Amino acid sequence: MEFAQGILDAQPFSRLLGARITAFGPDGATLELDVRDELHQQNGFVHGGVLSYAADNALTFAAGAALGPAVLTAGFSIQYVRPARGTLLRARASVVHAGRRQAVVRCDLSTVETADPTDPSASETLCAVAQGTVLSTAG
Amino acid sequence: MEFAQGILDAQPFSRLLGARITAFGPDGATLELDVRDELHQQNGFVHGGVLSYAADNALTFAAGAALGPAVLTAGFSIQYVRPARGTLLRARASVVHAGRRQAVVRCDLSTVETADPTDPSASETLCAVAQGTVLSTAG
Amino acid sequence: MEFAQGILDAQPFSRLLGARITAFGPDGATLELDVRDELHQQNGFVHGGVLSYAADNALTFAAGAALGPAVLTAGFSIQYVRPARGTLLRARASVVHAGRRQAVVRCDLSTVETADPTDPSASETLCAVAQGTVLSTAG
Amino acid sequence: MEFAQGILDAQPFSRLLGARITAFGPDGATLELDVRDELHQQNGFVHGGVLSYAADNALTFAAGAALGPAVLTAGFSIQYVRPARGTLLRARASVVHAGRRQAVVRCDLSTVETADPTDPSASETLCAVAQGTVLSTAG
Repeated sequence: MEFAQGILDAQPFSRLLGARITAFGPDGATLELDVRDELHQQNGFVHGGVLSYAADNALTFAAGAALGPAVLTAGFSIQYVRPARGTLLRARASVVHAGRRQAVVRCDLSTVETADPTDPSASETLCAVAQGTVLSTAG
Repeated sequence: MEFAQGILDAQPFSRLLGARITAFGPDGATLELDVRDELHQQNGFVHGGVLSYAADNALTFAAGAALGPAVLTAGFSIQYVRPARGTLLRARASVVHAGRRQAVVRCDLSTVETADPTDPSASETLCAVAQGTVLSTAG
Repeated sequence: MEFAQGILDAQPFSRLLGARITAFGPDGATLELDVRDELHQQNGFVHGGVLSYAADNALTFAAGAALGPAVLTAGFSIQYVRPARGTLLRARASVVHAGRRQAVVRCDLSTVETADPTDPSASETLCAVAQGTVLSTAG
Repeated sequence: MEFAQGILDAQPFSRLLGARITAFGPDGATLELDVRDELHQQNGFVHGGVLSYAADNALTFAAGAALGPAVLTAGFSIQYVRPARGTLLRARASVVHAGRRQAVVRCDLSTVETADPTDPSASETLCAVAQGTVLSTAG
C-alpha cells in the first residue's frame, strides 16, 4: 500500500485533488478523497469529472496490483447513478479477471456523510459504477 | 457561449482546473484548458482523470446546447489513444443525435503544443475519444 | 417470469438464438441459451456478438423488472474477459439502482460446461462483464 | 476484402445472420446484413443484439485491417440513437488510431430503406454509435 501511495503522491493531479489509497492488494484497490468545495459542480454536488478521475485511477491501481506496475489503461465506461453529495468520496475497484495481457476491472463509487472518514459504520451511498480494461505493458 | 461559460464558471472544479468554453452551438461544444504541471500524472503526461473530466464536461455542454440547460449525464465511455502531452488540452464534443428524452454525443480529445493557443494552425494530436448519453430532465 | 418469457418469445431474434429467461425479479434477470455450433465464431468460441446480444437483453429485462415494461436501453459497454466456450451461456443482470427516469444495470456473462443445464452445481466460467443505462419511457 | 469475407464466412454466427463485408482497408471496414424478420425484436425493429453484434464484428475487422489478423477485442460501448428499421443494416467502422499494441475504433450503425442495397443514393438513418479497443495478440 505504501508503494501504491508513493505512485499516487508522484501524480501532481492526485495531489491537487487530495487522493489517498486506503486499500491495495491482489483483489483490488480503494481510493478516497475528502470532498471540499473546489470539487463541486454548480449545484453543490461532486463534479462528474471528479468521479471519473477517481474511477480511472482506482481501476488503474487495482489492475496494477494484479498485473504489476507497468500498466496502461485502455479505457473505461462510467454510469452515474445519482448526484453525489457527502464529505468523502470512495472508489473501490475490484479485479474481475487478470490475464497475461490485460485485466478487466470494476469500480463502485460511493459517498459517505461523516465527520470521521475512518468510521467503518458510516453508511455509503452509491453514486456511480465503472468498468474498464487495463493493459500490461511489460513485455 | 457566454451562457455556457457562465455555467462553467459556476463549477468550482472547472475553475480549479482552469477550463473554458471556446465553442458552443447546436452542433456541439468545445472545452479547453491550459496544461500546467498540476494536471499531470507521474510520467509527465496529462492525467487520464483530466481527460475524463474534459470528456464528461464537454459531452454535457454539447448536449445542453441541443436539449436545453436541464440535463443529466447518464454516463460515457472513454478510450485512451496515446499518452497526452502538450500545452493545451481541447475536448470537442459533437451531438450525434438529440431527441426529446436524450442526446447521444461524441467527443474527441486532443492536445496542442503551442505557445499561442488561439493559433488555428497549431496541429492537434488526438489522445482519447469518448461517447455518452445525456438525459433531458425537463418535463 | 412468464410475463418476461412471453416478451422474449415475441422477439424473433431471441427465438432464433434460443434464449430463455430463467430468473426475473426486482433484483435482476437471468437469460440463458444453449450453445450450438451456429453461435460460434471462426475458432469455435461463442461469438462476441452472441455475448453482446445476451448482455443487451439481460440488462433490458432486469431494468424492466424494476422500471416496468416501458423501457428503452440507452446503451451499454461490454468488456471481454476470456474466450467463451461451454454448452450453456448465462447472462445474469442485476439492477444497481433504479430511479424514476432510469436504471443502471450490471451483467455477468458466464459459460457452463454441463450436460444438464439445470444442475446448480455446474461451475461457471466468467467470459465478459457489461454495464448499461436503461430509460423508462412511461410518462 | 476477400480475405476478410473468408474469415466472416468461417464464423457460423455471421452466416446465421447473413453478414457480409462490403469494404475493408487500412481506414476501416463495413459490414452489412439484410434485415429479415428473424432479426427483429417484439415491436418490429431490428433487435439491439443484432446492432451490437454488427458493432462488435465491424470494430474487430477494422482493427484487423490495421493490426493484422491476430486480434482480440477487449470491449466496446454502444449507444442507441433511435429504433432501427429498414431493409439493410450497415456498420461502418473506422480506425481512430492503431499502435503496436492496440487499435481504437469507432463505428456508425445505420439502416437503409431500399429495394436495392447497392444503390449508393439510398439514404442512411443512423441508429447507434459504438467505440472500442482491440488488442493485437501477435507477439
